[in-house]
Parts: sequence; structure tokens; C-alpha cells
Amino acid sequence: MSSPLRPDPLRLGIAGLGTVGIGVVKIVQKHADLLARRTGRPVAITAICARDRRKNRDADLSGYRWEDDAMAIATADDVDVFVELVGGDSGIAKDSIEAALKSGKDVVTANKALLAVHGQALAELAESLGRTLRFEAAVAGGIPVIKTMTESLAGNEIRRVMGVMNGTCNYILTRMESAGLPYEAVFEEARQLGYLEADPTLDVGGIDAGHKLAILSAIAFGTQVNFDAVEIEGIERVSIDDIRRAADMGYRIKLLGVAQMTPRGLEQRMSPCLVPADSPLGQLMGGTNMVVVEGDSVGQIVLRGAGAGEGPTASAVLSDIVEIARGVRLPVFGQPAGTLKAAQPARTAVPAAYYMRLDLQDKPGALAKVATVLGDAGISIDRMRQYGQHSPESVPVLVVTHKTTPEAIDFAIEALPRTGVLVSAPVELRIEEV
Amino acid sequence: MSSPLRPDPLRLGIAGLGTVGIGVVKIVQKHADLLARRTGRPVAITAICARDRRKNRDADLSGYRWEDDAMAIATADDVDVFVELVGGDSGIAKDSIEAALKSGKDVVTANKALLAVHGQALAELAESLGRTLRFEAAVAGGIPVIKTMTESLAGNEIRRVMGVMNGTCNYILTRMESAGLPYEAVFEEARQLGYLEADPTLDVGGIDAGHKLAILSAIAFGTQVNFDAVEIEGIERVSIDDIRRAADMGYRIKLLGVAQMTPRGLEQRMSPCLVPADSPLGQLMGGTNMVVVEGDSVGQIVLRGAGAGEGPTASAVLSDIVEIARGVRLPVFGQPAGTLKAAQPARTAVPAAYYMRLDLQDKPGALAKVATVLGDAGISIDRMRQYGQHSPESVPVLVVTHKTTPEAIDFAIEALPRTGVLVSAPVELRIEEV
Repeated sequence: MSSPLRPDPLRLGIAGLGTVGIGVVKIVQKHADLLARRTGRPVAITAICARDRRKNRDADLSGYRWEDDAMAIATADDVDVFVELVGGDSGIAKDSIEAALKSGKDVVTANKALLAVHGQALAELAESLGRTLRFEAAVAGGIPVIKTMTESLAGNEIRRVMGVMNGTCNYILTRMESAGLPYEAVFEEARQLGYLEADPTLDVGGIDAGHKLAILSAIAFGTQVNFDAVEIEGIERVSIDDIRRAADMGYRIKLLGVAQMTPRGLEQRMSPCLVPADSPLGQLMGGTNMVVVEGDSVGQIVLRGAGAGEGPTASAVLSDIVEIARGVRLPVFGQPAGTLKAAQPARTAVPAAYYMRLDLQDKPGALAKVATVLGDAGISIDRMRQYGQHSPESVPVLVVTHKTTPEAIDFAIEALPRTGVLVSAPVELRIEEV
Repeated sequence: MSSPLRPDPLRLGIAGLGTVGIGVVKIVQKHADLLARRTGRPVAITAICARDRRKNRDADLSGYRWEDDAMAIATADDVDVFVELVGGDSGIAKDSIEAALKSGKDVVTANKALLAVHGQALAELAESLGRTLRFEAAVAGGIPVIKTMTESLAGNEIRRVMGVMNGTCNYILTRMESAGLPYEAVFEEARQLGYLEADPTLDVGGIDAGHKLAILSAIAFGTQVNFDAVEIEGIERVSIDDIRRAADMGYRIKLLGVAQMTPRGLEQRMSPCLVPADSPLGQLMGGTNMVVVEGDSVGQIVLRGAGAGEGPTASAVLSDIVEIARGVRLPVFGQPAGTLKAAQPARTAVPAAYYMRLDLQDKPGALAKVATVLGDAGISIDRMRQYGQHSPESVPVLVVTHKTTPEAIDFAIEALPRTGVLVSAPVELRIEEV
């Protein structure tokens, strides 16, 4: 450790020169001395590639060999670490990572979709070959959540992991509240600001955040990553009405991912939830991300930072590169891939309080009918608010229940329309205890 | 990594069986399988010692060899890792750690005072012997700030590190505000609740938090740890008046540590500051700790969690033990000790807004005299509030300045009494930009 600098540099081959790729190049160039001092050896880029070579990029790439495709970099003799920043849950990203591992290289990637879908197979491959596959940048950008969970909390049995892990959704929900605008209007703003993925359902549909949650679950509970088991609901149905009403009751609506192991199996869900407005998660505004991890010894740890962007994501990629340069080799998901169990997926059953918004006909007995249904469902009411008339024939009623089961809520949501006193479909949102 | 379990256990020798020591024993016992799976080998305790053998402790210690003193454990043949939980910035803690390193053992400690005072020498010793010295538990309990700074942010030039790192002080300040009680009353409460160190000035005097800041500075800026250069001011002079007035202006008072590298040298200070009440630091209540790290690429990362207590602190000790069990060997302060520079200490000079409370005589021209002094000092006023009479002859006036230099504030604080219109000494507190 106190020995002089190793003369041989750690040689990087970077596939993909988008925002993150260029960010990595800039850090390697700007902080060459810093990186050498911290890792004990020089960190150098030897080869790069991207879809369009002629595209104008804001970094000097003249010193690096240009390859025609990721495969050529993954198998190049003068590359020690293959940095995959192409993206996509299959195709060239997957093929090139496999090729890199097979040709004896370690791999660093920011590809959450690929890890969420093929993480187990890739981890088994890497570990069978004695190579490492790191992905700090895949979850919550610059926030060091992967290292915190695989290393810092390794003495803990993880009880629950949750987080706001899609900055675009949090921006949209925050902006809806601050500007009092409906979802569609803010969605259009976000599109014009370039905040949305080419396929916006990846963001607003909760899929991108679901990928991240599946990865965290695997590390937290020692299970094989299982994205298909994540219950996903996006933010499309979150209305400005509910954001306002929730605020009246002291809550904020967030696209919240929650994973926890229960006697019935592993619960993984990514859905709009209410959280107390004064909690760290409730305070989270705009594009910032937050991950909350609860361990049996450490209690609750909250990590907050930028979840995307050139600098933060590149910073996370560098943390993996530095780890490899220092000679650290850890199991991909914190324990050997062969020891990761296939968890029984469980539908959410942990009781919670729920928020309900019901638009009732303005006539005698309407409220009584609703209260009866809730009673029949075994749901007891914590708080109820009836507001002044919306329209001539509808009266909005808000209900915050005591802790109850999702099953009871489902029963009520199904039964309520049959009362004949609802003007529109009932809205229900879980209030997550944070 | 996918290879079967190593048969030979990592053997721990634990010196000190207070809250943290017993917490470590409990985790090693409770999570034997978890630790083996995550590290690839069993983790076992072979020898222990504490001041009083007969003391009743809430853990089964029958399986471990009892040694008479830390030195015996530090030099025992059947110990791989010496876990120092005795405490103290010299004496047996220091001697036993040196002995352990010299007899070829790695060392894990939670001893912030020792590292703040002798960190450089111990790091040089450890690295010259090819051993490692880890101390995640020394700063902010269960919050993984050491690993985050030495590893996760290794691709960043750190701009500033700050934090609330003494839970007792934050409890006292929070309780003063919530209960409207004066400092002395809450201090007495804290003493009766057992929240205070044997020597309470370590807590309320800011020394314990100062130790932690000095350690973080060394990692952040690649400098030799220099506790003597930390400007320290405790919370003893924080009055309930100032807490109330600050709240009126939208601020909270925190014992805040701030370290940043400036062209003039390294600023390190631990002192009561105002922060916006709605900022993550401002929201921090009770015994919770928070560390904020700002890097040139990652931006601002906020880490929050329990700063003390059996479980959280033991969790941090385990993260170091797991790291060693996995065969990871990193430089003590994130880069070889020989490359750490002796930083030029600099008195705080970074401009900031300041809060001032002045009790003026209730007579014409008093405010004008004050305004003139501030003007002469080159201080421009952002907000000023005059309150109704406190007592027949005094009128409290609050001033929030625009950004100004500490020198200008010192000039004003010295000149104001000479106006002859102050009833009591002026109070000034820095408003840290967070």
C-alpha cells in the first residue's frame, strides 16, 4: 500500500460515448494524478467506440484507438477493464460483456436493464471465470448505494430497502404540486426539456425504477435478481387533485420502490405512494434520488444525491474502476452468485394505512353507504374529510384508513361502485411508513 | 469468488467490551452464516478482554479466551484482526494497536480521538508493515462515510465536507427548540439520560465532533490529519433566544463541522451555525447524524443515520471486519500515508451571511449608530428585525447580513460595544450555505 506507483496502467476500453461515457473520459483526463495516487497505479483509456464516430463530442478523444464496435473493445488485448455504456437489456451490451468476461477482462457497467433481466447469469459467468462485474452507476446515479449495501451494511440482515430512484418521475410529481399543473402538462414540459427517455414509459411507467429496485433486492436479501416479480405501477394515474388532497393531509405522493422479505416471500413493488411531507423522502424535490436501507443493527440509513446526469453517473463508474484498479474483487451481488436463492415472489400483504378519494353524489345517505362498505371490508377510518361541492352533483370525500391489508382495500375498491353513490371510480394509494 | 468457503476462519481479538464491543460480539454470533456467505470464510472471535471481568454483560462470552489486557490480545498468535474498542487518544489503545500491527495483525478501531491525534503516524506504521487499519465506526456511527469518501467518491476532487456528527449536541439543540428550555436545563436532562460522556466537554465543547471532522478532512483533501488546526466552538453559548430568533428567520442552529480547501489553506471548523430550517441539515432532529460531501463530479451527497449506539456502531465495525475477511487492503486514509500532504491551516475566510443579535438601549439614534458601524465594516444588511421591548431598557434587534467576510464581522463585533448603545454583548453566528 505504501509501495511506489505500479508502472503498468489499468487500461480501460469504453463502449458508448453518450453523456456518461464522455463524463468518464473527462474524469480520467482531469484527475489522472488523483486517480493514480488513490489507486496506486495509472488509469488509462486505450480504446473507445460509439455508434457515430463523426458526432461532435465535448472531449478530446484523439489519444484513444477508435474501434468499430463494442465487441472489438471487449476482446482487445490492450484492455483490462471493459466499460459498457451502450445500454439495452440484450443485444450488443449483453454480448460484449460476455465476450469481455470470457477474454479475461473485468467489466464495469451502468446498465440497470441488463442487470435486472440477466444479472444472475452474468454474475455466474463472471464468478466462474474469476472476473468481476461492477455496476454502482446502474442504481441511483452518484449515490453509493451498491457499495453501501454490499460492503458497509454487510453485518446487517436487511429488513427493507426503499427509494425514489427515477428523477424524471420525481421532477414531474414535484412540478405538478409546485405549479398546480395536471400530469399531461408537466409530462409535455419534461419531454421538451429532454428529461424523458426515448420511450417515456420506461420513466413514467416505473420500469426504469423497477429495474433498479430488482437489483437492490437481490443484494439486500441474497436472492436472484427477479425483475418480473416487481409489481410496477407508473405515475400516469396520479392526478393533481390527489397531490393537493394528500398535501392537505400532510403527505406527498412519490413513485416509491419498496422491497422487503416476508414470511410469505419477497415483496417488490414500485408504485405511487403517500409519504409524510416532513420525512426525508417527502422532502425530496425535483430530480434528486434517495435510497433508504433498514438493517437489523444499523437501523435506518438514508442516502441522497443526484440520480442521473454526466458528473454523478460518471463518478459512480469511476468508483468501480478505482475498486478494480486497487485489486479489489468482490462477488457481483455481495455473495457468490451460486449462493443466491430464488426467492418466492409475494404480492404485497404488509398492512399499511391507505388514502382513498371518493367522488360522491351529493345526496343523503351517500356517506353512510360508503362507511358501511368500508366497515364490511374490515377497514377502520383514521381521518375523513368532506370538501365543498366540486360540481353540482359531486362531493369529494377523502379517507385515511388505519393500518389495513391490501386485500381489504381491494375488496372495498371493488364493492364501492356497487353502492351506486360514486360519481367516478374510487382512487386508492398506499401510505408507506417511512 | 464462487469458490467454496475457505475453511480457516478470520480470527478476531476484541479489546473492550462496552456497548460497542458487546454489539460486535452479538452480530458475530447472530449472523455467523450471513457473514460467512458474504465474506467467503467464517468469522470467529478467539480472545476478548475488558477492564472488569466480573461485570454482567448481556452476551454469552463463555466461548472466548479471556485475556488480562489488550496487549495480550494484540500479540496473541491466534488473532488475525485486533479490534480496539478501549478508547482514549493515547495509552493502552495506542500501544496495543502499534503492538498488533507490529505482530502482523490488521486493526479495526472505533477510536476517533486516537486517529485524530495520531492517525498519520499509525497509518505510516500500518502501511510500512503491509497491514491495514480501518475505522468506519470512528465517524458518525452507522453512517458509511469513511467508505463512501475513500472508495465511492474516489473519482472526485472533494470541494467541501460538512456534517452534524455529535448526536448529543443535536439532541440538546433540538430539545431546546421543541421544549423552549434553556441550555442548562436540557444539558441536565441529557446528563440524567446518560447521553453525555464522562467528560461532557468532549460532547458539548465540540471536541468529539472536531475529532471526526479532522479525520474526514484528511481523507477528503489528501492531507495529514491535523486536529489541532480545527477551529472549535461548542454549543454552550447557544441561547434559547437565538434558537427562537433564528427560527423566526427560517433557520435552525446546528453544531456544524465544515472542512474545505481554499487558496489560503485548509479550513476546518466545528461551531454552531445557522442552516435553512428546510434543508436536510436543518431537518435533522435528535441524535441522528448527517454528513454532506460535495465532489466536483458527483455534486452533493447526503448521508444520514444513527451516529451512535450499540447496533449502528457495531454495524460499522463489522463493515471493516468484512472488508478484511474479503482480503481487501486499502490505504488507511484513501491514499498511501506517505503521499498525504501537511496542509497549511487557514482561519475561516470564506464569505458567508451572518446572523447577529443585538440588545439595544431603547433610545433614539441607537439603531443608526449600529447601522453606521456595520456600514463602516463593509457589511450590508439583508434583513433586519426589531422586536418589541424585552425589558424596560432593552430592544432586541436581529440582523441577517449579505455575504461578508469573517474579518468584517470581527471588526463589527469589536466596534459595536463602543457605540455605547448595546445593553449586552452582541451575538454573531455564521449562516452556512448548504
